[in-house]
Amino acid sequence: MRILILGGDGYLGWPTAMHFSAVGDEVTLIDNFAKRQWELEEGIEPLLPIPTLHRRVRKWKDVTGKTIKVHVGDLCNHRFVYKLLDEVRPEAIVHYAEQPSAPYSMQTRTTAVYTQTNNVVGTLNLLFAMRRYCPNTHLIKLGTMGEYGTPNIDIEEGYITVTHNGRTDTLPFPKQPGSFYHLSKVHDSHNITFACRIWKLAATDLNQGVVYGITTKETDLDQDLRTSFHYDHVFGTVLNRFLVQAVVGVPLTVYGTGGQTRGFLDIRDTIQCVELAARNPAKPGEFRVFNQFTEQFSVMDLAKKTVEAGRRAGLNVTIDHLPNPRIEMESHYYNAKHSKLADLGLKPHLLTNEMLDHMLSTVRTHAGRVNQDSFRPTIPWAEERPS
Amino acid sequence: MRILILGGDGYLGWPTAMHFSAVGDEVTLIDNFAKRQWELEEGIEPLLPIPTLHRRVRKWKDVTGKTIKVHVGDLCNHRFVYKLLDEVRPEAIVHYAEQPSAPYSMQTRTTAVYTQTNNVVGTLNLLFAMRRYCPNTHLIKLGTMGEYGTPNIDIEEGYITVTHNGRTDTLPFPKQPGSFYHLSKVHDSHNITFACRIWKLAATDLNQGVVYGITTKETDLDQDLRTSFHYDHVFGTVLNRFLVQAVVGVPLTVYGTGGQTRGFLDIRDTIQCVELAARNPAKPGEFRVFNQFTEQFSVMDLAKKTVEAGRRAGLNVTIDHLPNPRIEMESHYYNAKHSKLADLGLKPHLLTNEMLDHMLSTVRTHAGRVNQDSFRPTIPWAEERPS
Repeated sequence: MRILILGGDGYLGWPTAMHFSAVGDEVTLIDNFAKRQWELEEGIEPLLPIPTLHRRVRKWKDVTGKTIKVHVGDLCNHRFVYKLLDEVRPEAIVHYAEQPSAPYSMQTRTTAVYTQTNNVVGTLNLLFAMRRYCPNTHLIKLGTMGEYGTPNIDIEEGYITVTHNGRTDTLPFPKQPGSFYHLSKVHDSHNITFACRIWKLAATDLNQGVVYGITTKETDLDQDLRTSFHYDHVFGTVLNRFLVQAVVGVPLTVYGTGGQTRGFLDIRDTIQCVELAARNPAKPGEFRVFNQFTEQFSVMDLAKKTVEAGRRAGLNVTIDHLPNPRIEMESHYYNAKHSKLADLGLKPHLLTNEMLDHMLSTVRTHAGRVNQDSFRPTIPWAEERPS
Repeated sequence: MRILILGGDGYLGWPTAMHFSAVGDEVTLIDNFAKRQWELEEGIEPLLPIPTLHRRVRKWKDVTGKTIKVHVGDLCNHRFVYKLLDEVRPEAIVHYAEQPSAPYSMQTRTTAVYTQTNNVVGTLNLLFAMRRYCPNTHLIKLGTMGEYGTPNIDIEEGYITVTHNGRTDTLPFPKQPGSFYHLSKVHDSHNITFACRIWKLAATDLNQGVVYGITTKETDLDQDLRTSFHYDHVFGTVLNRFLVQAVVGVPLTVYGTGGQTRGFLDIRDTIQCVELAARNPAKPGEFRVFNQFTEQFSVMDLAKKTVEAGRRAGLNVTIDHLPNPRIEMESHYYNAKHSKLADLGLKPHLLTNEMLDHMLSTVRTHAGRVNQDSFRPTIPWAEERPS
């Protein structure tokens, strides 16, 4: 299939691109390298040095003989997007090209407005371009489980059937996002729902949980093919951060009590889920929502697993409960459905001791590059920071 | 009370400003005259010529001896907004300053993106400025009943209590907006909800129905104090348009069967509702939603009432069912709750024959100014227009 990956330089976009290329699809990817700019702003770096995208694509060709096409450009430039879709005419589009960090969005008015305009306008441009050039293309959009927040009822996959005053309807599941970033994804979901309704576009919204993991089959082929692994307080997801803290002997930074419970998945399952969505497309006019995660954990569950993994590796890992910089419930009900991707054939990589030990040992070989200043959360949700 | 009206040059903003000034409040208003620019773009004009804002404010001073302060600026310019709130330190802010037309938003990619960025970024700037300069100020935000769409269950005021799989929670009412404009208001609602939660701002979201009417007590004081009354297919609301069509002998333009049912209210009740919200503010941290309308009608109900009003005035009024340019249900359940403003003391001006006859006779005195080219809907929701 002709597949277009948006945000192909990123943590998930790059391994996704390699995977589709490896299994024989015709892959084009775009990026505007905004993420590398944000890293410079924040003074943070991924754990492993990441070659430029052009260098990685050349290496991929050297190693596999396969070609990944690259277009450099910004979704917020609609002329770029229109020309791109007119030229590529993809059968599927995988859309990772958004500012993905809640703390980044919560820093200042500037980063909040930037996150919402970048994410919302980029996606609007994409929808208008699809309508004009490839209305039958399947849009696979990365959403987030964070759109739902933590309601006191079971979280369904996108829709809920409500009986109220004797009448029944199936409605979009109510959203209670917890940051300006998460809000941008809710805005996207509403906009895409509408575009599917009026223009009969076909879209799958993958409401993804928190991703952990450092390697995939393809990143392991060559060190120049590895992906951008973050452990810092801005872009680092919680388990990735804990494992790096464990390796360098810094207490794990748990926010508050650590009772916050979320859905999690292995980076290899992100790729598997995206592929399952691509091979089983939504129908014209359909806005389909899958909850994309494999297991639920609380932050303390993950901290304890990290302590145990450390013990197995001869590391003495401790836990530090920091004042929670976020406004969120630390003790709450959480039961999110996630059967639709399983029904399509997802075979989860669960968070086993073997996986934890493998990640820990991979991190250990790069311990010398860790910047310990980047662990501490310095972006509070409530108080204004000096600007 | 020190009250700040955003969008004070508009159909509702200007009469609202005069009313608060008349009853003794200290009124400041802002506008960037964007609406007058959109009118020029579309080649349409309000029924009555509207003096400039500065001229109207001078006339208000002449007629009443009262001062309304004016600041000219754009909410999307955050430096303007910060300076404004720092100087004015209002006790209440009434926020009308958004692009308010669904058809305008549906014209092109440019107008869709403009509508969403203008409305969402303007409101974000306002929230950040309130947080910094006046976190105890009460924000009264004009939303729209169109945020809810037409679900097959009763529409509650902002929130719904859901029992699901044996558990219960009160959640934001699911939103199914029907245009890029209505989507922008849903995005606003989510953003304001979040700001109230994390920064303890106090906000009232007035999910307003479709407004009709041409005069208020204050607009009647002098012809230079009248407000911008639209009857065209872009900014004209349905009953206002029907009455002008009746006067000039053009068939009423009903979209499709006309079974579309919505909540409606008299412009005088808009002002009454805003005042009730201002005098009974939300609490810190509260995001309160009122459904602001007084009666439900279908489009055909209003067409028939217009035919009858025409008959009483000696006019032969006919009805034309046009292909519906919008994507919307033309036959649907609709029962929206609207008791919270009544509980605060709202005394509705219902759509009586007297009201219809008064509007019709007012329109008749200006029949010579009507531009009949501006009635026909030329903005389809589904098909792309030549750009």
